[in-house]
Amino acid sequence: MIKGYSQPLSPLGLANLVKAPPWHYAGTVLAIDFWADPTQAQAVMPPGMRADPEGRATGFFIEWQATASSDQAYLDPVGSQYREFFVLLAASLDGEAVATCPYIFVDQDVSLVRGLIQGYPKVMGSIHLTRAFTVPSLAAPVVGPGGRFAGTLAAKDRRLAEGQVTLRETSEEGPRHTAFPIVNLRYFPRLEAGQHHNPAVYELLRQRWENRTLSTIWQGDADLQFFGSPHHELAALTPVKVGHGYRYDMAITIQDAEVVRKFN
Amino acid sequence: MIKGYSQPLSPLGLANLVKAPPWHYAGTVLAIDFWADPTQAQAVMPPGMRADPEGRATGFFIEWQATASSDQAYLDPVGSQYREFFVLLAASLDGEAVATCPYIFVDQDVSLVRGLIQGYPKVMGSIHLTRAFTVPSLAAPVVGPGGRFAGTLAAKDRRLAEGQVTLRETSEEGPRHTAFPIVNLRYFPRLEAGQHHNPAVYELLRQRWENRTLSTIWQGDADLQFFGSPHHELAALTPVKVGHGYRYDMAITIQDAEVVRKFN
Amino acid sequence: MIKGYSQPLSPLGLANLVKAPPWHYAGTVLAIDFWADPTQAQAVMPPGMRADPEGRATGFFIEWQATASSDQAYLDPVGSQYREFFVLLAASLDGEAVATCPYIFVDQDVSLVRGLIQGYPKVMGSIHLTRAFTVPSLAAPVVGPGGRFAGTLAAKDRRLAEGQVTLRETSEEGPRHTAFPIVNLRYFPRLEAGQHHNPAVYELLRQRWENRTLSTIWQGDADLQFFGSPHHELAALTPVKVGHGYRYDMAITIQDAEVVRKFN
Amino acid sequence: MIKGYSQPLSPLGLANLVKAPPWHYAGTVLAIDFWADPTQAQAVMPPGMRADPEGRATGFFIEWQATASSDQAYLDPVGSQYREFFVLLAASLDGEAVATCPYIFVDQDVSLVRGLIQGYPKVMGSIHLTRAFTVPSLAAPVVGPGGRFAGTLAAKDRRLAEGQVTLRETSEEGPRHTAFPIVNLRYFPRLEAGQHHNPAVYELLRQRWENRTLSTIWQGDADLQFFGSPHHELAALTPVKVGHGYRYDMAITIQDAEVVRKFN
Repeated sequence: MIKGYSQPLSPLGLANLVKAPPWHYAGTVLAIDFWADPTQAQAVMPPGMRADPEGRATGFFIEWQATASSDQAYLDPVGSQYREFFVLLAASLDGEAVATCPYIFVDQDVSLVRGLIQGYPKVMGSIHLTRAFTVPSLAAPVVGPGGRFAGTLAAKDRRLAEGQVTLRETSEEGPRHTAFPIVNLRYFPRLEAGQHHNPAVYELLRQRWENRTLSTIWQGDADLQFFGSPHHELAALTPVKVGHGYRYDMAITIQDAEVVRKFN
Repeated sequence: MIKGYSQPLSPLGLANLVKAPPWHYAGTVLAIDFWADPTQAQAVMPPGMRADPEGRATGFFIEWQATASSDQAYLDPVGSQYREFFVLLAASLDGEAVATCPYIFVDQDVSLVRGLIQGYPKVMGSIHLTRAFTVPSLAAPVVGPGGRFAGTLAAKDRRLAEGQVTLRETSEEGPRHTAFPIVNLRYFPRLEAGQHHNPAVYELLRQRWENRTLSTIWQGDADLQFFGSPHHELAALTPVKVGHGYRYDMAITIQDAEVVRKFN
Repeated sequence: MIKGYSQPLSPLGLANLVKAPPWHYAGTVLAIDFWADPTQAQAVMPPGMRADPEGRATGFFIEWQATASSDQAYLDPVGSQYREFFVLLAASLDGEAVATCPYIFVDQDVSLVRGLIQGYPKVMGSIHLTRAFTVPSLAAPVVGPGGRFAGTLAAKDRRLAEGQVTLRETSEEGPRHTAFPIVNLRYFPRLEAGQHHNPAVYELLRQRWENRTLSTIWQGDADLQFFGSPHHELAALTPVKVGHGYRYDMAITIQDAEVVRKFN
Repeated sequence: MIKGYSQPLSPLGLANLVKAPPWHYAGTVLAIDFWADPTQAQAVMPPGMRADPEGRATGFFIEWQATASSDQAYLDPVGSQYREFFVLLAASLDGEAVATCPYIFVDQDVSLVRGLIQGYPKVMGSIHLTRAFTVPSLAAPVVGPGGRFAGTLAAKDRRLAEGQVTLRETSEEGPRHTAFPIVNLRYFPRLEAGQHHNPAVYELLRQRWENRTLSTIWQGDADLQFFGSPHHELAALTPVKVGHGYRYDMAITIQDAEVVRKFN
């Protein structure tokens, strides 16, 4: 008798790629507020959502370590660590300010499929972030004024994004362009004849989280660029203007999410 | 306006990880018929299916090149080539002889998500197959009597399977333990509170294919072993006896599939 | 007592990354003759060599399977298969027409270090080649008139080269721009104080090979482009004109090489 | 005119895989003191060195960020970050207590070749370490009493080592089994006929470092195991007894090294 939360269901449930929530995450975040072309932001909106007329957006480079329940998955880090890059766009849904994720790249299958279940449209990518250490070195920036941190993204052997933040001072808040509830499009297609455009799952999913804890937030000047690729449309959202950048650690727990609209 | 077959839906549809069918595949197959412990085979059956009482099964190591429609994706092979390993188990459904895939590993995100849409419970793995060349060399086996070919599988840094075939003669048929229609469990979980065990998609999907073309099939003696891992249950299906092995090229087109039972 | 041909020397010699010659190779080659800017070609010449005044060059994308002696390393393909891209430049040494390799990228450590021993200045890269199969498919080109094959190179997450060949007819010869003996610079630096520019090994090594066997050669129209990167200078050799492209299988054995000039 | 410290020498020197020293490193270290079988430790000694009669040794899992000179390579982390695992064995050379590295695995080509220049017999591997964050989370251990950290190693698709440390208290010193000057065998073979066992470089290199800075050191109980592979002999050094484990950050600068014995 096969069981568990996700495929592959298996006799013991150990083979499930994604284990049942709660999911606990700890990560180091490099976030950059920017403005996209509002027309392009509108063009990637899920049905029923309206993009922010100013095109406010945030790019996130994150190194994560994650676990389901309290199983200490961090003791086999090859399966519990990953890096990702994603864009959030400011938007409105039924008059409420929200954010939505049009594109996201990750380097771990567990996270890719977990993301699909959350409505994050994940694909594989290669993401790297500058690291800091607790000892001074010319090989690493300081976590303090003047420290420079970079994030990079590639997918299918092409560089797609580069961001940089030079820390200036601590901040009470992190990125603010998209500091709203996140509502994603969850979508799972059908393969049956005549049903290729009639998906099995087609709905807006509002993310929920608990135990959100942030470290000291450092902010500073930032740069962010997206590059073209025949397989991606991220470059259409390339920053027309860049705001502040931020660096901080974050912990979060995800227990569930809420369907706020169904399209099928 | 976002569009396309799969996430990420995008203004031009170029960003879709999986493009709409038809999907065309060409591959080189190393297949090994074996017998699993029938109790273990039954233990991984989807609901409504009964494992072959003898535990007949086949392990497949395949190097694929795939494309959607006729877009010559093979001209950017980083996104269109991949390798996979999977097991098919002989089974019956409503008295009909079928096969089903309990475990499958692949090294390309496009194929991973396309597999989930087909009910193949794909996770990432590292798969390698011995190659043949059209010139004689001590670095490669002959495609002929005495030629030895291997397939290997690892996932999350652990070796999970090793197979070997020594070619003896050509064969009219390929692997026969699981030469039946394939019926997979398609399953997509919900994240909503109280719904973690009430999946959004939970059904048996019967695979359909067209234009199936096989090259000359070579068969011979084979060996196949599975190894344990804390994250996988493949080893429970480890061969209790190994049959013949086969090597051939195969082309196939997939246009759609048929839901044969819904559980929700 | 540690022993063997290369580091790590070990009690049984099994740990040697590179085993002692002979080395046997079988590969599928996509080769493209081109002309580089002769000034740039001269700029990458090893000491004592003069670039072809026309800048004749060839780019090679190759999928290899290799073994030392007859140990059937092809039965553990994760260690014996690899892909590489390299440029050969036509040159002269003491009035003799030769070729030399200024840049080469590979995806396997065994090959990287073996290359350094041969004077190939190898670094890691991500290389992909279109594959052909012995069955017709929209997912693969024909090995015949009209068949289109691509090769791609990336390193450190950036696309560096793309080549394409459309087959037209068979050819008696393969690429001819660099069909000369290969003479490489073998170079191994010192770390001792004051010796950073006084290498321990600094010499020209003339490659030797045996048992060279080529399959039928297909030739046709070709395209080849190099792209910039802050960590590479390949783009300086970007084709100013592209000649024919070629596709064939090749087997070769390397037993030794000859030092033809020492600089230290 | 090609120039630089290492291959590929290039017109601008940008293509050098390894730039000239000084090399600056910052890293997070998980180190585990253990005892190997003294006979096996002796069996991997370079010529002229005698293993510690008790077989004292240390295993190190490290996440590094490194740069040459002050070029802020950390702003393109895909090329400047890497992870490695290595063993140091206590030994004596001419009556002096030293340590030597018989086996080392790394996941970055820059570091692989830099290591060969230092006499570290590097090969590629897949290394992972549990990470800590500056916010509390069930997804990460505390850097304090009870925090559990793991390190894992695989190469060529096989798990080769697993270590774990449970932190108990801070320590004035880090690992002490091998806290001696490091003397490595630097070895670069010849390919010329008749010279396969007459290396071009064959000497003992004593490592030197400056600016060594350690963070607070946490120590605790540890476990460490090595696993077999047909391509490696690490398992012969598998711990017969395990001592304390340690976790700390470390910065270091390497400017040069000293040849202490030449064998050719």
